[in-house]
Amino acid sequence: MFALDIIVKKRNGEKLTKEEIKYFIDGYTNGGIPDYQASAFLMATYFKGMDAEETLWLTEAMLHSGDVVDLSCIPGIKVDKHSTGGVGDKTTLVIAPIVASCGVPVAKMSGRGLGHTGGTIDKLESIPGFRTSLSPTEFIANVKEIGIAVAGQTGNLAPADKKLYALRDVTGTVEDVSLIAASIMSKKLASGSDAIVLDVKIGSGAFMKSFEDARKLARTMVDIGHGAGKKTIAILTDMDRPLGNNIGNALEVSEAVEVLKGKGGDDLREVCIELAANMLFLAGKCDIEACRKQVIDAIDNRTALNKLIQMVERQGGDPKAIEDTTRLPQASVKVEWKSDMSGYIEKMHAEKLGIASLILGAGRKNKDDVIDPSAGIVLCKKPGDKVEAGQTLAILHTSDNERVMEALYVLKTAISISKTPVPRNPLILGKVQ
Amino acid sequence: MFALDIIVKKRNGEKLTKEEIKYFIDGYTNGGIPDYQASAFLMATYFKGMDAEETLWLTEAMLHSGDVVDLSCIPGIKVDKHSTGGVGDKTTLVIAPIVASCGVPVAKMSGRGLGHTGGTIDKLESIPGFRTSLSPTEFIANVKEIGIAVAGQTGNLAPADKKLYALRDVTGTVEDVSLIAASIMSKKLASGSDAIVLDVKIGSGAFMKSFEDARKLARTMVDIGHGAGKKTIAILTDMDRPLGNNIGNALEVSEAVEVLKGKGGDDLREVCIELAANMLFLAGKCDIEACRKQVIDAIDNRTALNKLIQMVERQGGDPKAIEDTTRLPQASVKVEWKSDMSGYIEKMHAEKLGIASLILGAGRKNKDDVIDPSAGIVLCKKPGDKVEAGQTLAILHTSDNERVMEALYVLKTAISISKTPVPRNPLILGKVQ
Repeated sequence: MFALDIIVKKRNGEKLTKEEIKYFIDGYTNGGIPDYQASAFLMATYFKGMDAEETLWLTEAMLHSGDVVDLSCIPGIKVDKHSTGGVGDKTTLVIAPIVASCGVPVAKMSGRGLGHTGGTIDKLESIPGFRTSLSPTEFIANVKEIGIAVAGQTGNLAPADKKLYALRDVTGTVEDVSLIAASIMSKKLASGSDAIVLDVKIGSGAFMKSFEDARKLARTMVDIGHGAGKKTIAILTDMDRPLGNNIGNALEVSEAVEVLKGKGGDDLREVCIELAANMLFLAGKCDIEACRKQVIDAIDNRTALNKLIQMVERQGGDPKAIEDTTRLPQASVKVEWKSDMSGYIEKMHAEKLGIASLILGAGRKNKDDVIDPSAGIVLCKKPGDKVEAGQTLAILHTSDNERVMEALYVLKTAISISKTPVPRNPLILGKVQ
Repeated sequence: MFALDIIVKKRNGEKLTKEEIKYFIDGYTNGGIPDYQASAFLMATYFKGMDAEETLWLTEAMLHSGDVVDLSCIPGIKVDKHSTGGVGDKTTLVIAPIVASCGVPVAKMSGRGLGHTGGTIDKLESIPGFRTSLSPTEFIANVKEIGIAVAGQTGNLAPADKKLYALRDVTGTVEDVSLIAASIMSKKLASGSDAIVLDVKIGSGAFMKSFEDARKLARTMVDIGHGAGKKTIAILTDMDRPLGNNIGNALEVSEAVEVLKGKGGDDLREVCIELAANMLFLAGKCDIEACRKQVIDAIDNRTALNKLIQMVERQGGDPKAIEDTTRLPQASVKVEWKSDMSGYIEKMHAEKLGIASLILGAGRKNKDDVIDPSAGIVLCKKPGDKVEAGQTLAILHTSDNERVMEALYVLKTAISISKTPVPRNPLILGKVQ
């Protein structure tokens, strides 16, 4: 078998075999196939695509390129959740305790933020003392004992994906549905769960800008999950606006706690209930309506909040910072951004809000940047809301006064105000199973 | 300007600017743009193509990536000839002396053979003593004094092409008409001639297998030539059969001399007259019919043969080996291959004949292989010829008896014999100007 023949076969639009895909991925991972052949292969795939079987084979080859986590020693059906990434997306902080409090074990490995999207690990680290770096033994022991652990990734999961993703990024081959789906699913499947709920975001703050593209990605990922023998559901949710009101690490923990206390933004609560209910459903708890009720009960009777407090304590964090979120890191500078006109909030460009939050110190431009846990934005208005001139649109949180002007400059292009009432768009846009 | 943006622009089917193409080619040549971005760019170009202007800009960027030969000190219009490569193609050996003897200076740089196609330099080196390695000063002095020099390439011509060609070869991006045309024309234009006659081969022994593909390549190259301000004509010739009867270095010199003596294979003579006449035409000698007559006269009155003898002598070769070609290297083993059936020669697969000749010692599998100047094949029959069982189809020349069986094994699949008469196909298939 030769890499060149595989490139030419894909270029000519022929279907590759499982062996050919495995040969190429293995060869690329171990360095036998050079970057320049891999990028030609990726570009040929961009133009000619892969069918469902090829995409599954690609995912499996990438999945088996490194470690595969074994969670079989934890009793019960382990359900993972993955979001394709958005602004203000703190759903893991809400859902994980809900699902765990309903008796479904949560063994969740999460990532850090880069660019305008945040990462669950950064958010958790804004809780004083919280440790996200757990040994595999401690991670599994926590899940066994209290039903929940959320930690940074350990082990060498899907190294083929890391290498391919870095190459796609610099060769114009990111935007292919098979390559995107295989990238996400290879990592998810390597994480060892039995079932997966995917939150596929659509809109200005998401990677997928159109409903059709998002549905295609969701379909492709669900098919991969099924092909790999895992129950998989994708929920399509809106990311044309940020999720919830708070953007920034401690601010998002605070909002997540509010939801678990039965308060917080309605949109965030709605998405969290839907995702958590589907996780319980995949765990075989009951039918989807009963699962929804169970989720709402776990919020109403505070068992989910208590589960979060238990997890924070177990992972070295200060549980008082959850009971009273004013104990989370607080920004020294808070600036109100006021509307200079009256009307209705029409658009809220999520990506731009994410960038403004990054400027204020909440994110990383480069991998090694240090983030300010207290920085971010609290939105006082959301799309559809009425606003009067002089009313506060958002509060900017930062430790560095000099960043405010630059953030405001971005914010001004992020929000548009209409003279006429604006309908509130639905948040949950579809489901693929 | 960023390489990634240029890749994405081409991937999206947009037209690149002259500056973008120059930026990419310059960056790739000097190492600033890595192989993996260049191969993604090449694959995107394979799928989205380049229009005539982009192809010209690509050629010019490649042409100016290295030295450009300056022949302006030689008086007169210098006309170059380029063949896209074939089996038994010894036209340069015939045409160069004809054109020079008609008063048009010939300053020709040629290459070596690789694989099943031969190279003029290897053929000339089969003449005892002949030097193909001339300094630029000697090369130009020879053209000025006797009107002709044929030598190996000196200087660093179109290094971008060398680098890109090597990359295309291993990334499945060879077969694109813009990339092929730019590769050929960048080298030709760097060679410094004022006008170019292209011999575009079509058929089993050529790179272009179909008439349509060959015509498209010819059109693209002629347009590049015109765009670069050079008079350019392409002649489309058949390479479904080998050109002439002899394949192999000394054997081809011998056949070229026969043509200059007014003998030799009719097909070879026909193609040489057509190409030489077009070269004289581009030099502005006279109309094409008068040019044809001048070429035939140069053969009939032996001025062309005498010009070849003069060149051989000037470049250190033994002129007696031209006057009497039995003085050229002779193979120690000559094996007749006889037909086992009667009928008419239907097909003669040129590429396979080239491979058989290579096996006998006439060519190089790898760049550093040493060739046997005496090895090769003399065809006794050509397509359309009648053959009786037991008659000789070809004579195999080699110095190594052990190679005969392997060569015969290939030859047997190269020739097909029909029971019914086979028409002789025309040799000159078209002209693009």
